[in-house]
Amino acid sequence: MPLLSLGSRWKISWDVLIIIAIFASSLVIPYRLVSGEKQAGLLYWLVTFLFIVDVAVNFHTEVKDGLVILTDRREIARYYLSSWFWVDLISALPLIPLFGWVWGPQVSVLALVRLLKLVKVPKLFRALREFVELPPALLRLFVLFFWFSLIAHVMSLGWIAIGGGEIDRPFFDRYIRALYWCITTIATIGYGDYTPNHDSNLQVIYTIAVQVIGVGMFGYIVGNVATLVVNIDAARASFYTRMEEIRNYMRVKRIPISLQNRIKNYYHYLWETRQGITDVDFFSTLPHPLRTEIALFLNKAILEKVPLFKTADEIFLREVVEELEPVVFLPGDFIIRQGQYGDCMYFLNTGQVEVLVNGKRVAILSEGSFFGEMVLIKSEKRSASVRALSYCDTYKLSRHSFERLRQKYPEFDRQISEISREREKSLEGEE
Amino acid sequence: MPLLSLGSRWKISWDVLIIIAIFASSLVIPYRLVSGEKQAGLLYWLVTFLFIVDVAVNFHTEVKDGLVILTDRREIARYYLSSWFWVDLISALPLIPLFGWVWGPQVSVLALVRLLKLVKVPKLFRALREFVELPPALLRLFVLFFWFSLIAHVMSLGWIAIGGGEIDRPFFDRYIRALYWCITTIATIGYGDYTPNHDSNLQVIYTIAVQVIGVGMFGYIVGNVATLVVNIDAARASFYTRMEEIRNYMRVKRIPISLQNRIKNYYHYLWETRQGITDVDFFSTLPHPLRTEIALFLNKAILEKVPLFKTADEIFLREVVEELEPVVFLPGDFIIRQGQYGDCMYFLNTGQVEVLVNGKRVAILSEGSFFGEMVLIKSEKRSASVRALSYCDTYKLSRHSFERLRQKYPEFDRQISEISREREKSLEGEE
Amino acid sequence: MPLLSLGSRWKISWDVLIIIAIFASSLVIPYRLVSGEKQAGLLYWLVTFLFIVDVAVNFHTEVKDGLVILTDRREIARYYLSSWFWVDLISALPLIPLFGWVWGPQVSVLALVRLLKLVKVPKLFRALREFVELPPALLRLFVLFFWFSLIAHVMSLGWIAIGGGEIDRPFFDRYIRALYWCITTIATIGYGDYTPNHDSNLQVIYTIAVQVIGVGMFGYIVGNVATLVVNIDAARASFYTRMEEIRNYMRVKRIPISLQNRIKNYYHYLWETRQGITDVDFFSTLPHPLRTEIALFLNKAILEKVPLFKTADEIFLREVVEELEPVVFLPGDFIIRQGQYGDCMYFLNTGQVEVLVNGKRVAILSEGSFFGEMVLIKSEKRSASVRALSYCDTYKLSRHSFERLRQKYPEFDRQISEISREREKSLEGEE
Amino acid sequence: MPLLSLGSRWKISWDVLIIIAIFASSLVIPYRLVSGEKQAGLLYWLVTFLFIVDVAVNFHTEVKDGLVILTDRREIARYYLSSWFWVDLISALPLIPLFGWVWGPQVSVLALVRLLKLVKVPKLFRALREFVELPPALLRLFVLFFWFSLIAHVMSLGWIAIGGGEIDRPFFDRYIRALYWCITTIATIGYGDYTPNHDSNLQVIYTIAVQVIGVGMFGYIVGNVATLVVNIDAARASFYTRMEEIRNYMRVKRIPISLQNRIKNYYHYLWETRQGITDVDFFSTLPHPLRTEIALFLNKAILEKVPLFKTADEIFLREVVEELEPVVFLPGDFIIRQGQYGDCMYFLNTGQVEVLVNGKRVAILSEGSFFGEMVLIKSEKRSASVRALSYCDTYKLSRHSFERLRQKYPEFDRQISEISREREKSLEGEE
Repeated sequence: MPLLSLGSRWKISWDVLIIIAIFASSLVIPYRLVSGEKQAGLLYWLVTFLFIVDVAVNFHTEVKDGLVILTDRREIARYYLSSWFWVDLISALPLIPLFGWVWGPQVSVLALVRLLKLVKVPKLFRALREFVELPPALLRLFVLFFWFSLIAHVMSLGWIAIGGGEIDRPFFDRYIRALYWCITTIATIGYGDYTPNHDSNLQVIYTIAVQVIGVGMFGYIVGNVATLVVNIDAARASFYTRMEEIRNYMRVKRIPISLQNRIKNYYHYLWETRQGITDVDFFSTLPHPLRTEIALFLNKAILEKVPLFKTADEIFLREVVEELEPVVFLPGDFIIRQGQYGDCMYFLNTGQVEVLVNGKRVAILSEGSFFGEMVLIKSEKRSASVRALSYCDTYKLSRHSFERLRQKYPEFDRQISEISREREKSLEGEE
Repeated sequence: MPLLSLGSRWKISWDVLIIIAIFASSLVIPYRLVSGEKQAGLLYWLVTFLFIVDVAVNFHTEVKDGLVILTDRREIARYYLSSWFWVDLISALPLIPLFGWVWGPQVSVLALVRLLKLVKVPKLFRALREFVELPPALLRLFVLFFWFSLIAHVMSLGWIAIGGGEIDRPFFDRYIRALYWCITTIATIGYGDYTPNHDSNLQVIYTIAVQVIGVGMFGYIVGNVATLVVNIDAARASFYTRMEEIRNYMRVKRIPISLQNRIKNYYHYLWETRQGITDVDFFSTLPHPLRTEIALFLNKAILEKVPLFKTADEIFLREVVEELEPVVFLPGDFIIRQGQYGDCMYFLNTGQVEVLVNGKRVAILSEGSFFGEMVLIKSEKRSASVRALSYCDTYKLSRHSFERLRQKYPEFDRQISEISREREKSLEGEE
Repeated sequence: MPLLSLGSRWKISWDVLIIIAIFASSLVIPYRLVSGEKQAGLLYWLVTFLFIVDVAVNFHTEVKDGLVILTDRREIARYYLSSWFWVDLISALPLIPLFGWVWGPQVSVLALVRLLKLVKVPKLFRALREFVELPPALLRLFVLFFWFSLIAHVMSLGWIAIGGGEIDRPFFDRYIRALYWCITTIATIGYGDYTPNHDSNLQVIYTIAVQVIGVGMFGYIVGNVATLVVNIDAARASFYTRMEEIRNYMRVKRIPISLQNRIKNYYHYLWETRQGITDVDFFSTLPHPLRTEIALFLNKAILEKVPLFKTADEIFLREVVEELEPVVFLPGDFIIRQGQYGDCMYFLNTGQVEVLVNGKRVAILSEGSFFGEMVLIKSEKRSASVRALSYCDTYKLSRHSFERLRQKYPEFDRQISEISREREKSLEGEE
Repeated sequence: MPLLSLGSRWKISWDVLIIIAIFASSLVIPYRLVSGEKQAGLLYWLVTFLFIVDVAVNFHTEVKDGLVILTDRREIARYYLSSWFWVDLISALPLIPLFGWVWGPQVSVLALVRLLKLVKVPKLFRALREFVELPPALLRLFVLFFWFSLIAHVMSLGWIAIGGGEIDRPFFDRYIRALYWCITTIATIGYGDYTPNHDSNLQVIYTIAVQVIGVGMFGYIVGNVATLVVNIDAARASFYTRMEEIRNYMRVKRIPISLQNRIKNYYHYLWETRQGITDVDFFSTLPHPLRTEIALFLNKAILEKVPLFKTADEIFLREVVEELEPVVFLPGDFIIRQGQYGDCMYFLNTGQVEVLVNGKRVAILSEGSFFGEMVLIKSEKRSASVRALSYCDTYKLSRHSFERLRQKYPEFDRQISEISREREKSLEGEE
């Protein structure tokens, strides 16, 4: 049998199955106990089987010890035996039939030993959070639901056990009414149709306990739901707050409406394409090598088309890529203006631009194009304008960076000087 | 018929009308169903009419597909048919009369099909949020109100349907009392004057469901109201927190009261003119071309008055504008001090300043003025002081930036040298 | 009579008095109306008097129109007449006696006209917030208390007006019980001992309204209290969070305990002396001239003692001060180490330091001292160590800054060269 | 007897004991008073003894006066006598027996004087917070629990004192039922089985007071629990939010899955090793001398192994260390690539790297190694690649920084030139 790897589909499914089995046991075992049912049911045997298999599965699953993933079976076994093995084993034992066979059915309280497995639930949820691509808020709601249901269930059964509610109904009806009382209480509704018997100190004290724990749980849940709500929309909310501020500012400064609209559109674009993170934000939090790899992935295909870089090797391209700076342009923005002194070239990552000479369109460039590369060799006036036709994600390479690279790589410097000299000759020829 | 454009007044009004129609239907249809009313009322026909018109309107409305706005009728039709058309059509059909004519009035349950249109409500609210200039918190309250009312309404009708409350009253009175029970429950008040019949498992379980959903909704609403409250005042709160910190700091450092008051006044000014954003904050989040356009809008008129820039063309001014840095001065602040070596000139955007020579006022300058321009050519001692008379928003151009521009634009450099030489001659003449 | 100035003690006291008068009227007038009391009481006449005086006071009080403070009586009058005058006048009129004299006591409903003044309450609270040095959270609690009391009061009276509660008790007892019902409801407690009469649709609907508004208010108040709690402790909480993170980091990096303790002590010092703001934070948010003024205030006395700056004038000192950088040292830190090449001098703002030569203490310096000034002229090895004996707030002036200043101010440069030459001579003499 | 030092185990234990004693007294004294018990019990004498000892202990404990810790016994006594001494003394006096002996047992109300000690509780909790390494959220829950229990206890006894609840039961049963009523009310449950007697204005008003205070406390507690929940997970939540944003961004940019996984792993590593703080964050908030000390601690052992620094003294190493910049590499990252022009050397703090020449592994380096040091002397192509085998925490020293140091320390510069010349000779010899 091969090792189950962490984060594999099989491992995740198995964990979910185990969580469901624990949940079901935790509901059914106390229910049967309070109802006086003494026989192990079908579910009991099913869960017993699952838990025993789980022990076996754990011996054949990769395990994370700190930052290291153990893949050697002996190491896994050693690690497992010294951590969760005993919990898994004891909760898997079919104690009722084992002892019931000896001492009779009154040992049913031993079934509670199975609930020991509950201590493993947080670990299982943590594993899910790490490997399943669910929004963390949703997963947290599941966790809350799991524990909330269990506690409410146990509180209701406790209420029956101390004689609360209507005693002369069938057990299922009593349970429903106890649950009703419990929810009514912990949701702080408190109809008052079921209250503790005023002659029973036990019931009064039990109710106080349920109320205090209820307030805590309620506060915790309200706090969580509120937090989750806030978090789900945090990015959007801060985005709208930001826009609101910008709007106020522009109103104060009496900026013309057309310009205001351009700015608003820009923010919408930012939101819709990257939920408000700018490229600079993104890159600034990554360590250097990752940054380079991403920039390389995004720009390598374009870079290789640039004549200047045709002869350059991978290592040199890597250095070029590190100098790129992401810039966004809006539709209608001039990226380059004819007559301006340029000091950088552009790589067009997404979007379309038009090339204008004396105001007339002479070409349209799409994704994967580059332009303005000649100023890297020699600062000169731009001979054409380039205007964005749509939102354009570009990367910019400045002459300053380029010159630093030339200094560092003398061979490359020589090639560029060559190109430069040839170009000047051809320009002279043209004149 | 022309296309309805997104964000136009007509489109927004129509969307609001449709939302109201959906809301009314969603209230009335279940109410009539539970009350046993089997005939389609006037409202039913009115909404039918509106929904049919809505289908037609949608064929003639611009549509946003990702970031692209479709304006071609055929493309709009294709997009609509593959998205919301079926929902709109089915919910528009007058099913009761259609089938009621065949099978008699007992088909009134078919009226519920109309509620299918509810799935479109989130989309309609999203459209409103994008195009209506309402504070997002307010719009969100509307959305909450919409869904909260509907759920409470349906829960109340459900309570009647399973026989809750007082059966022998007229239907409207029963509804009012069911609503009363429902609100009492989900607001966690729980008077206990209406409670489920303890002999009806169905009613008890229904109540548990209402309670659990009620707690959730209540938590969600409390969370939202709290969040909205926090957000509405977030800017102001963080502003006051900031001021509080500043105040503590100044107290610890024993800064004199008059200076403390100046600082407090400055913060108030910041708050009242731009809700606490500084110009630097504002500019730093905008992409480069927008930044330039705004700075150009704010300063072009002044720039053109500066003798140094008289001969410069638009492209050059654009570069000048990119180098400007916004600076705020408080009333009484010295912007320039006589005798100090200056390294920048100022453009006065708003406010008034006085020019002082040896402490005597020689002039007052208002919005649209500039001063200190001579240090751009040659660093020299300021020959006069300039002091702010009110809060002044200025832009600063440093000699450093100016020299960079001169290097880039040799023609301009020549003009400036000319001016400089002439000026020196005239100074020599003066001496 | 002189003008009352904004923010003066008298103005604030008067505003508080008016708020109290409005609060009292708003409680008493509806109470008397519902109780059937038709005569104007003593309080009525007192408030009438206060409100009439208030009109007069407003004609003699400075007023803020936007950012400008009006101090001219005619301008104040014009501004007042076009803003709050009518509200103030109408609510001041003693309408009951005026009309009661004509139409008899049944006009008592006219007393409600006085409550018009409530619309001015938000303005009054805003004025208090601006001029009173109360924590904003506390003031907000007052505002909440004001409106919450009023709404609960009015809801209770409404309950009586529609016949809720026990009818046959004296009015005051009925009021107390109505208030009890109201609080029980809006705090979502809902004992159920007082509930609407089930035969009165009006009472049921009124109760629903109170419940819905109650939930809203409750959510709002819980949200506010929670926010206030968060805000009151925000600075401290973020401070402790920060320390917790630092602690984790240090544990991971296995930094020795003694170093860990020094770091913890540093944070405590930061917290206790400036609630966690560092000097850099503080200075970075201020505009340039204020920054200079504060630095000048903090350092001028020390600066004037430094021999190098003895001959410098105010304008030059101002430039020096702008170059200072605040630095904190912990007890035991070496500020300067013998043998190190120095590149900055220090001004000791608070705290004590010892001077060590070859490890032996030769002097103790206190607040207002400076040291290391010679490296400003020539980079050389430090000839002594300086070690902090307590927490020291110092300002640092780097040679780099100093040289920039020398370039800008040639006269000063000459003086320094002089000093430098003399010093070298004397050193040669010593050798 | 030696002085108890602040933060010592003994001092903390004593404080905890005193808190428990105060808590017990505050519960028992009002209980006995309301129950009519007039004799001082055992607990009373025990607490009397503890409080008297506490006065003595305080004379022998270090005390913090502002930022200074007093250790002189006379200063401590003076400070104590002018601060907490009288509170401690008066609450320690056994007033009941003292006066009971004179006036008889009806003076039992004097026992309440002991509760004066409650004013010292906030100070005791503050001391715990400063010196005990508990998460602040947990400590705050203790504080909440302390005050909440006390208030609920007193409210319940008040309810009995004004005749609420069932009068004819034994006192303990009455207390339990009063507590039940109190919790039911302030948790806003409000069963309604115990309500104020409608004929007693006092009871109705008392209930209103409990309700209003209850709402406040409930709001405060919910706010606190929610805040605590938010804070406990704040770091983790912001971490997951960050990852979510990154994930969205990468999806939009269509970055290949393998690269996405590397980025995710990097974030997990960041989280697990330093709860999401990067080294740069950590260092940037520390003052300069602490930063140096930590960097020195982390790198000194490695530094001393570098041949270039063998002859350098401590002061020079200190300056080197200030120039180090922390950098993290992921497994598989190339730290150095063969053929690239290098401009920095690396110190390997944790992790393993392999050295590759032409793609073949020639060595493995572990913690405490350094590499790339030759480029500090002369920029040249890297002669080997270095690749991270695990997550590597490294520190980087750039040539730029190194050259600055050489300029400052001429002796060191000479040594390096020497080494450099020798090296070139040996290289020539090799060729």
